[in-house]
Amino acid sequence: MAEDRTDNRQKRVDSVQDTAAEVRAILQKHQLVEGLVQKQDMPRQELVEGLVHKQNIAELKHKLDTLHPADIAAILEQLPLDERMSVWNMVKAELDGEILLEVSDAVRETLIADMDPEELVAATGQLDTDEIADLAPDLPDEVIADVFRSLSVEEREQLRAALSYPEDTVGALMDFEMVTVREDVTLEVVLRYLRRMEELPENTDQLFVVDRHESLRGVLPISQLVVAAPERLVSDVMTTDFVSFQPDNKADDAAQAVERYDLVSAPVVDVRNRIVGRVTVTDIVDYIREDTENEILGKVGLRDEDLFSSVWKSARNRWLWLAINLCTAFFASRVIGLFEGSIEKLVALAALMPIVAAIAGNSGNQTVALIVRALAFGEINRANAKRLLAKELSVAFLNGLMWGGVAGAFAWLLYGSIGLGLVMVGAMMLNLLVGAAVGMFVPLMLQKMNRDPAIGSSVLLTFSTDSMGFLIFLGLATLFLV
Amino acid sequence: MAEDRTDNRQKRVDSVQDTAAEVRAILQKHQLVEGLVQKQDMPRQELVEGLVHKQNIAELKHKLDTLHPADIAAILEQLPLDERMSVWNMVKAELDGEILLEVSDAVRETLIADMDPEELVAATGQLDTDEIADLAPDLPDEVIADVFRSLSVEEREQLRAALSYPEDTVGALMDFEMVTVREDVTLEVVLRYLRRMEELPENTDQLFVVDRHESLRGVLPISQLVVAAPERLVSDVMTTDFVSFQPDNKADDAAQAVERYDLVSAPVVDVRNRIVGRVTVTDIVDYIREDTENEILGKVGLRDEDLFSSVWKSARNRWLWLAINLCTAFFASRVIGLFEGSIEKLVALAALMPIVAAIAGNSGNQTVALIVRALAFGEINRANAKRLLAKELSVAFLNGLMWGGVAGAFAWLLYGSIGLGLVMVGAMMLNLLVGAAVGMFVPLMLQKMNRDPAIGSSVLLTFSTDSMGFLIFLGLATLFLV
Repeated sequence: MAEDRTDNRQKRVDSVQDTAAEVRAILQKHQLVEGLVQKQDMPRQELVEGLVHKQNIAELKHKLDTLHPADIAAILEQLPLDERMSVWNMVKAELDGEILLEVSDAVRETLIADMDPEELVAATGQLDTDEIADLAPDLPDEVIADVFRSLSVEEREQLRAALSYPEDTVGALMDFEMVTVREDVTLEVVLRYLRRMEELPENTDQLFVVDRHESLRGVLPISQLVVAAPERLVSDVMTTDFVSFQPDNKADDAAQAVERYDLVSAPVVDVRNRIVGRVTVTDIVDYIREDTENEILGKVGLRDEDLFSSVWKSARNRWLWLAINLCTAFFASRVIGLFEGSIEKLVALAALMPIVAAIAGNSGNQTVALIVRALAFGEINRANAKRLLAKELSVAFLNGLMWGGVAGAFAWLLYGSIGLGLVMVGAMMLNLLVGAAVGMFVPLMLQKMNRDPAIGSSVLLTFSTDSMGFLIFLGLATLFLV
Repeated sequence: MAEDRTDNRQKRVDSVQDTAAEVRAILQKHQLVEGLVQKQDMPRQELVEGLVHKQNIAELKHKLDTLHPADIAAILEQLPLDERMSVWNMVKAELDGEILLEVSDAVRETLIADMDPEELVAATGQLDTDEIADLAPDLPDEVIADVFRSLSVEEREQLRAALSYPEDTVGALMDFEMVTVREDVTLEVVLRYLRRMEELPENTDQLFVVDRHESLRGVLPISQLVVAAPERLVSDVMTTDFVSFQPDNKADDAAQAVERYDLVSAPVVDVRNRIVGRVTVTDIVDYIREDTENEILGKVGLRDEDLFSSVWKSARNRWLWLAINLCTAFFASRVIGLFEGSIEKLVALAALMPIVAAIAGNSGNQTVALIVRALAFGEINRANAKRLLAKELSVAFLNGLMWGGVAGAFAWLLYGSIGLGLVMVGAMMLNLLVGAAVGMFVPLMLQKMNRDPAIGSSVLLTFSTDSMGFLIFLGLATLFLV
């Protein structure tokens, strides 16, 4: 019997996708019935369908009640808008807050649009102040005002603090659930103090040891609390060798520290070393995921997009980037326009010129990828930048010689002109050097301008290698061949 | 006094870059002296320089001794090969193992090449079996054999197990440092048992409750152990509602579960529910970072590349991708070649055709980014794929109308031919539809073939939008204008 109980509740990882499929299956039944009801409106039919309909709803509700809020969030993400709303309305109200936290910004918007102010205030009632701060940008002003009134003085202070820090700082990531103890008590006393709580906050791997001014003196790992003799003093057992953050530290730096020093939690202190909050690995994992996603989407000019947002909304989300790229393409087109005379005389140039542009773009993007990664880990500095540039240019030269040679041979064989082949080799080589130099320079420049080098580098690079590729190739051809 | 001690050892995040700069400064002094010694070889000079030289080495060694292995690893990453080796030789031997674990694959190779077999065996002596397994692919066979002989029977079994799982599975991520207890004892007994250890393994937020067959019955959170009354039984306090993995689960799924359910550690069980290891959030954070990096580099066809590897090695690392792209560029060039006659008659086509290809490539890459992200989170399935395709095609149609219109107007104004403008609009619209269809289809196909859709999708997409762009635009122009 006990065996069964254990096995039933132990969650296996591969079951999450299955659950989503189950939910979809129930939803489908649900819709089939609704379809029938709409088509046939005889009273008796209605009665039967109504019963089945109710059964389906009960089945779905029951299923949803067994799920973790994060799983419900994942299911909501993959449902088209109408089905998403059916499911959202069946979710237990006390999970609303958690689920809103877990879904992506775009999906959160659709869910919030469906809730009235009272529901929203109730949903935030289940959350900690740092979590309310995460939702705040998406909540209507009246709801925020109501939420504010419902908080204690201390919580209001925390919410104000959390809202005051920019999104990519430690202050915006931290929570306020730290447990503090004094250094002049025994572990026994600490244990008695902890037993008065029903449970410890999540991710509590250490307690923070503070003096009477709330100034941080050290940390007491829970594992030490467990293994050390209870009669020992906190000051004897605590460690003073630990990592701390300040609220205005960059979130990226904090993420790197958590990763590098294998932290589960770390204290956040103000300039006078007073503890103001803590950062946990859970927050950092979420931050890393969001950051990576934003970068991947940002590279192609997208802000967070709901998989099933309306066509019109999706289209607008993509405009800016397409417009920028259209401008750079127009520019490249005008460069070609300068050489229309040469192309008329030697039409092979038109067929060959995209090769010169494309390969330099590819090679330059390899440099960009390396430099962006190195910048993310703080690996580039004045001392090594020159050596790096020299290396990248040498690699480009070597690759230019080699692949330029291949492309030149292709041109020679195809068009039977050794001159055309040689111009191809020269243009490829020069444009690969352009790609390496721009691929190195652009990310460094964006970083210096305090912009994310992962976003924008590629557009600027392709702009350079396209325009310069056409200019160099058609220019050399005009000089030597036409 | 105590105040000072606390402040001195408390590590602030922004200090890591400063430390790296300090190390570089000492290295530079070091090299200046070496340069002087080489230039002037008078005996007296030598003596003085020798002293300064020794001082510098002592200073550097002292600095390195205060650093965390992960910080030393970060510094090694950003040093050119010769300086890297100087620093590596000054590092305390007992940190070698930790540092080898922390550096990237490419840098690890350079460090291992510098060590003799005895040093390598000694370095692994400081590591756990799961960590040795991580290094194993880079170690010479003779070293592995020696290491194996130095292990206990149990450790050999663990190493064999860890080496037997493919790289992207839970089995390759897990460690063996789990603490297990029985359910029929009191918390008091558990605490006494733990006090016999000097410390708990890192990331121990829960103990694993097993029966006499090592079968997992539940988990006992450390925080429960701390807050619950000591006379209570483990079976009363433990939770049976927890997440577990199996060794052959995909690492990606485990990472998603750790993120979704905010786990610090999770048990790994075999098919008979016997505990064989555990996965910690620390391993997952490292996995996510490596995975993201591999994807970013893999997108431009790079394997992990040392920032300062030799020019020849770097060049070869980039060849495959450049070769593939050259082939697709040759193909696109031949498509243009088919229409040389038309271009000779209407040279404007040569200047305009890259616009059609580029914008569809950009738009298609937006679709690819969305689909790849959705696939990573398991958000796409049979049920919603068709709706998604319909949405992406509609967005492409809308954008084609809009930006095709802009490009058409550009062509009309520039070349004064309304026919050319209309061909431009039609070609842009059709090619954006190609981009959306290919951008949706390619990642799904790669996923089905069990390949990473983030890698390769872009090349295939650009291949299609380039070739089809030229074909559609030049084809329409040949039909209607020439």
